[in-house]
Formats: sequence, structure tokens, C-alpha cells
Amino acid sequence: MESGNSEHSGYVINKTRLEFVVDGIFAIAMTLLVLELKIPDLDNRDSVHELLNALVNHFPTFASYLLSFLVLGMLWYRNNSYYRHFLFISKGMLVSQLLQLSVAAFFPFAASLMGRYPTNELSFLIYVGCITVYLWSSFINWVWAKHVGAIDTQLSRQKYVRHRNRQLIGSIIFSLLFAIYLVTLSAN
Amino acid sequence: MESGNSEHSGYVINKTRLEFVVDGIFAIAMTLLVLELKIPDLDNRDSVHELLNALVNHFPTFASYLLSFLVLGMLWYRNNSYYRHFLFISKGMLVSQLLQLSVAAFFPFAASLMGRYPTNELSFLIYVGCITVYLWSSFINWVWAKHVGAIDTQLSRQKYVRHRNRQLIGSIIFSLLFAIYLVTLSAN
Amino acid sequence: MESGNSEHSGYVINKTRLEFVVDGIFAIAMTLLVLELKIPDLDNRDSVHELLNALVNHFPTFASYLLSFLVLGMLWYRNNSYYRHFLFISKGMLVSQLLQLSVAAFFPFAASLMGRYPTNELSFLIYVGCITVYLWSSFINWVWAKHVGAIDTQLSRQKYVRHRNRQLIGSIIFSLLFAIYLVTLSAN
Amino acid sequence: MESGNSEHSGYVINKTRLEFVVDGIFAIAMTLLVLELKIPDLDNRDSVHELLNALVNHFPTFASYLLSFLVLGMLWYRNNSYYRHFLFISKGMLVSQLLQLSVAAFFPFAASLMGRYPTNELSFLIYVGCITVYLWSSFINWVWAKHVGAIDTQLSRQKYVRHRNRQLIGSIIFSLLFAIYLVTLSAN
Repeated sequence: MESGNSEHSGYVINKTRLEFVVDGIFAIAMTLLVLELKIPDLDNRDSVHELLNALVNHFPTFASYLLSFLVLGMLWYRNNSYYRHFLFISKGMLVSQLLQLSVAAFFPFAASLMGRYPTNELSFLIYVGCITVYLWSSFINWVWAKHVGAIDTQLSRQKYVRHRNRQLIGSIIFSLLFAIYLVTLSAN
Repeated sequence: MESGNSEHSGYVINKTRLEFVVDGIFAIAMTLLVLELKIPDLDNRDSVHELLNALVNHFPTFASYLLSFLVLGMLWYRNNSYYRHFLFISKGMLVSQLLQLSVAAFFPFAASLMGRYPTNELSFLIYVGCITVYLWSSFINWVWAKHVGAIDTQLSRQKYVRHRNRQLIGSIIFSLLFAIYLVTLSAN
Repeated sequence: MESGNSEHSGYVINKTRLEFVVDGIFAIAMTLLVLELKIPDLDNRDSVHELLNALVNHFPTFASYLLSFLVLGMLWYRNNSYYRHFLFISKGMLVSQLLQLSVAAFFPFAASLMGRYPTNELSFLIYVGCITVYLWSSFINWVWAKHVGAIDTQLSRQKYVRHRNRQLIGSIIFSLLFAIYLVTLSAN
Repeated sequence: MESGNSEHSGYVINKTRLEFVVDGIFAIAMTLLVLELKIPDLDNRDSVHELLNALVNHFPTFASYLLSFLVLGMLWYRNNSYYRHFLFISKGMLVSQLLQLSVAAFFPFAASLMGRYPTNELSFLIYVGCITVYLWSSFINWVWAKHVGAIDTQLSRQKYVRHRNRQLIGSIIFSLLFAIYLVTLSAN
């Protein structure tokens, strides 16, 4: 199959190696989230009370860490469940995948921003914006894969459509969320 | 087996790719530990004595680095030895695995805290707390895997129970350690 | 083949593991790019306007992030498409590959420099210089692989030459770009 | 073989997954080296001259980056060439491997120290010390592997001894280098 595909006009990349880089980037982005957690400076190094207060004050950062870890974990899981239906990766799919990855790798910044400025509405808008861009490019990837014939024929048309619609609905919900926040922000 | 499982109601994820992300996150967390080691600022750049003193003063940080590296290495080894008995990964197992990973990825922070404030009892409490949460979620993962039939039937009931009990005992010991420290802390 | 190659005088390294480290370094370099994006300090933590201004002022950094992510993605893709024609990796090829990787791993610094000082011509020169060194060592790798007989005989001479020429042209274009910038800089 | 080894008393870990973590940690350590390169602060953001001076002043840091990248690349290559003779990984081998990895992951700190204080003899001593510890634990790993019968019988006794002696000589050379520097330092 591998060698057969290498002659296929749509073939551009070894699927296993792409999965590898995808998995790697998700794993790294999930682990880099921890770098946004800063050790507080204490006046009294032995004071349990002071350290506790300092950490409690940074609660939004910890909440953002956990939330972002789970969001990235879920996006990775989605990627995983779609990728196993792909027979090969075309150039268009590679570009859309790279776009998705650039958003995933950008996540530690968005998470850090939300952890540092949790009450600033722009932080949340950027966070939601990231997820929105990711979901749309994932949706385009799926439709494009069908278009170039990269989806395993073992996946029935019906199941393909169900997956597509689920992705479309997710993308629309986040786009609406983004739009509402944007309007609210502009109105203020 | 792979293709057979893909039709299995419990199947949600390619086990190899999950192992990959698990290994990746452990490797990254272990390597990120080094970022907590800061280069000291010297008045006299060429003074061996001053640099030696600066590094010796940061001894707790280096000790915390080595300890945390070995703890992560051991947790990774445990994960490894349980995972090879799993036939597939169910949704519940994936969630519990993500929880474990979020704790593993959080480790560089806990290690950094303990290295910076070794005499502050809260640092140690958080460190022990991390290991406790990890051990419990690993225990739940194991029991859950049995419940959904994900454990290889080649592993005898007896061996499954021995593994389970060993995990349970580890979790209880760390919980007790955590509780004792918490009580001591509150009493002060 | 693996075991056969292990007796081959040219064999020095397991190709799969080298690909692994190559993929890993590219994935990490692409994700580390995000660390150059710094959270701005705000006077009024809740001010959407102030945060927006701060982020817009850092626009070059974000542009550099996206550009560098795509450049690294493209270089990784090129590496991928050449590597699948290699039967084994000789010592010379390993050295040239390590050189390429040291440039790829250096990219986050070059990208960060360009994001911080976008109007400083030296930043751009260094960025172009990195790509130039990478392209030349990739070209040498390809020619060297042919020389030691490491290229799959299934790849026709004609295709080998086409690949080689494409690499040579890319290397020359970037060298010219680099030379022109260098002359312009020196003239100022 | 895999399943056979799982019943073997010496079996403790899946070799492929250990290789994975080894490769991952080397790839990450090699890429983290770049984080020691700091973007200089400029008074005149557009001054090519000032930026050039700032970078030239940091020349030791760049030299340390490149040197450390190649050292890590070479240690990884050595690891690779020994690992392919291992049939399984025993507990003792795992511990010695973890020790090796903790040194490899520590490298970015040692490299950073040498880049920042190139004229401070202690920096160089620590750097050489790291390589020395790595080489000895690698040597012990090799001898231990022979002792527990983990080395492929296809490797002749003669070749095993040649590998062992080469490792021993490397370890001794670096130990002597370390000792000489230590004595010189203490004498000052």
C-alpha cells in the first residue's frame, strides 16, 4: 500500500511520520503549558501561609493550565479518530494540517494570556478564536480528504457525513461564541 | 486485532499513538526539569570560588532535579508495565490517562517549587500531592480497564489482583503521607 | 534488509531512529517558537484596549512565529520526501544530517530575533543565512547519498537528477539573496 | 521474541518504548539548547552595528550551542549503535539508562553555564564532568548487559570486547581530563 501510494499522484508524505509530528507537537504543547506557571517570590521563604496565598492568587493560571491541557487532549483525540480513516495525505491536506498544528502550538500562549489576565475579555476572545480556527481547518481537512479520495472506502458515506456534520456543528458553535464575544467587546 | 478492535464498542483510540503521546509527555517533562536550573549571576565572572558557592547554594534545586527525574522515570516505567496488558483504550481510560498526564506534565512546576523553597513545608505537600493524584488515577485506570474488558486475558486473574493491590497500597501510602503532612501543616 | 545492512560497511545507524530524532527536533523547534511570544505587562489588567494595543505592537513577532512555523514545516516536508529514497545512512550523511538539525533547532532563535527587531537588516540576514546553510547541507546530503550508494535503485537516474537540480537551484537562490543583503548591509 | 521475553525473568520494559524515550530526551535536550541563546537588548533597534556587536560578544554562547549539539548528537549515535545489540532491558540496565538520560537532559544547563562563563574554569570542569559520568554509566550499562545475557549472541565475543574497551578508554580519558582540571583548579 505504502509503495503503491508512492506512485499515486496524491501522495506527498509518509502518513506515519506526519502522525508522529502531529503527536509530537501536541505532546510538546501540552507539556509547555507548565512553563506559564511561575514560582512566586516570597519574603519569608519558610512561610506556608505566604506561599499558599501566592499560589491561590494564581488560581486562574492553574485553572487555565488544566483546562488547556484537556482541550489539547481532546483536539488530539479528535485528530486521531479522523486520521485513521485517511489512506494518504495530499498536499492540500498537509497545508491544512500544518495550519492546525500552528494553532495547537500557539495554544500555550493563549492559555498563558488567559491565566494572566482572566478578567480581560480579550484573552478569552483570543482563546475561543484559536479553537475556532482549529475546528474550521480540521473541518476543511476532512472535506478535502473526501474530495481527493483520501478517505478509506471502508468508511460508509453515511458515517463520513455524520463525522462531517459533527465537525461543522462544532465549528459553527465556536464561531457563534466568538462572534458574540466580539460584538460584546466592541459594544463596550 | 487492530482492525477488529476498531469495530469494538470500547475502541476509541489507537493504542500505539496513545503510548506515543504518553512517552512524549514523560520525555518532555523530564527534560523540561532542567529549565528550573538557573545560571547564577556572578560579580567576578572568572571566580571559580564565587561560581562554586552560587551552585552549592542552589544544591536543593539540583537535588530536586535528580529526584524528580527519577520519580518521573519510575512512573513512566510503571505506566509501561501496565500498558502492555491493555488490548484497547476505552473512553473512560483515555480520560483517566489524560488526568495522569496532566499531573506528569505539572511535575516540573512542583519540582521547581521544592527546589526553590525546600524548607517550606507546602512545597513538599504539593509534591507528595502530585504523586498521590497520579497513583490514584493510575489505580482507577487499571480497575476500569478490567471492568470494560480491556485487559489481555493472558494475564491471569491472580496476577491482575497482585498488580491491583500493589497499586492500591502505593496510593494509600502516599495518601497517608499527604494526610499526615497536611495535619502537621494545619497544626502549625 | 536491516540485518543485511548492519553488515554493510556503509551502515552506521538505524534509519527509523534517525527519522524519529529528525521528526522530534522539527516538532520541538516548531513548538518552541511559541516561547518567543511574551505576555505583555498591562497597567490596567482589565483593559481590552491596552491589551489589544500591546498585542498589535508585537505584530512582527506573531508574523515571524507563523512564517517560521511554515518554513520549518516545509523543510521537514522536504526532508521527509528525500529520506524515503535512502536505503541506509552512512557516517558522512549522519554528520551532514546533524548539521541540518543544528540549524533547524537554531531556528527559534533566528525567528525570535526577527520578531524582536524586524526593521534591523541583520535579523533578516541571519534568518536567510540559516535557511541557506540548511539548504546547502541538505543538497550535500543528497549528492553524498548517491555517492555512497545509499539511494534506492527504484529511483531512476532522471528523477535523482531532477531532485538534485531542484535542491541546487533552491540553495543558489537563497545564497544570492544572502549575498545581496550582505552587500547592501556592508554598503550602509 | 517479545512475548517470549515477557516471561523472561530479566524482562522489565518494552525495548522500543525505551528507545523512544531515549530518542525523545536527546531530541528535546538538543533543541532546548537554543533557549540559552538570549535576544540582546538594543538601544537603537535598527542599528546593524549594535546588533552585530551584541551577537559577537555572545560568541562563546553560540560556540557552546554548536559544540553541545554535536556532543549530544554523538552520544545519541553511540547509544544507538550499542542498543541494537540488546535483546531485552533488565532492571539494572534501566536504572543505568535513566542515570545516563538524567545527564543528557542536564546538558543544556552545563552548556549554558559554559556559554555564559567561558573563562571560568569551573564551567568547563562541570561540562567535562557531565560527559565523564555519562560515559561511565554507558560503560557499566554495556558490561551489565553482558552479565545478564542481554546482548545478542550474533555479536561475537571479540566484537563485544572491542566495544567494551573502546568505551572504557573513552571513560578513562575523560576521567583523566576531569582529574587534571580539578587539580589545576584546586591548586589556584
